[in-house]
Amino acid sequence: MPVDASTALEEWVRPVEDWPVPGVTFRDLTPLFARPEPFAAVIDALVDIARSAGPVDRVLGVEARGFIVGAPVALELGVGFVPVRKAGKLPHTTLSTSYALEYGEATIEMHADAVAPGDRVLVVDDVLATGGTLAATADLVREAGGEVVADLVIIELPALGGRAVVGDVPVHSLTTY
Amino acid sequence: MPVDASTALEEWVRPVEDWPVPGVTFRDLTPLFARPEPFAAVIDALVDIARSAGPVDRVLGVEARGFIVGAPVALELGVGFVPVRKAGKLPHTTLSTSYALEYGEATIEMHADAVAPGDRVLVVDDVLATGGTLAATADLVREAGGEVVADLVIIELPALGGRAVVGDVPVHSLTTY
Repeated sequence: MPVDASTALEEWVRPVEDWPVPGVTFRDLTPLFARPEPFAAVIDALVDIARSAGPVDRVLGVEARGFIVGAPVALELGVGFVPVRKAGKLPHTTLSTSYALEYGEATIEMHADAVAPGDRVLVVDDVLATGGTLAATADLVREAGGEVVADLVIIELPALGGRAVVGDVPVHSLTTY
Repeated sequence: MPVDASTALEEWVRPVEDWPVPGVTFRDLTPLFARPEPFAAVIDALVDIARSAGPVDRVLGVEARGFIVGAPVALELGVGFVPVRKAGKLPHTTLSTSYALEYGEATIEMHADAVAPGDRVLVVDDVLATGGTLAATADLVREAGGEVVADLVIIELPALGGRAVVGDVPVHSLTTY
């Protein structure tokens, strides 16, 4: 019997207490990725949502776990995959933006030619937490002249308020904690 | 007309001169990943090779570009995907190993329960360069009691001698520079 995405998430997302810091429960997707049917069910569910958001020209995945989710979604949709990476990892001309973390800041980059003016872009990540990374990714897409059609994540942590930080971009998640 | 992997690689691997250091030509796969037919052709070619290596229980991908390649290969083969990550990124109990870089050393980790004793494992990465990361990954698999059936990469740089470092594990690459 095929596994559906809800069952896959109920059974294979592992809570890890006190990680990365005491008091936080981390939602670990690696047991789900390690099971082929649950992994495929989650990818299929994301692809179904993506199709309902209309045609897109590119799927962007955010380093590093977003690559595990975004690349298969791009291939299933039949569109190109673009990695958004931490500073200093991309070899060609990049667009770059920084955003605040709890302590300090982070910088992410995208190749300047990876999104063309007018491109409709879908951004895929594993988890929506504070929204900082997805908001910064949308800034990069706008700087390149593209439009983020939707943010697609497996897990959303609503208590962290990420949707407000992401702003006008529609966010779709498969489950919340 | 469908694109074959050789044509995809000829057309869409971008040489970037003097990166990451002067005198080195980096082979940038991001233009290929950004084109859906070339990206799919390369994944299909890797999957064909993987099938000829016999049944496998897991596909391992090495952070971060190995995730872009390994996750789709795992899904196509219908087996689970396991991320091998830089130190401190995996939340649960890990196996860990360090290996020498030109300056200093690197540590990679895998969840201890990600490979079971007797598992046949395929390791996927984008590029075989010095072979240090793939040799270290094989150490992690052996420590977990598994066997690396093959290393699968898109690009091999034979001048860097990676095959010798990888040792007894068969290496398959789609192209060399």
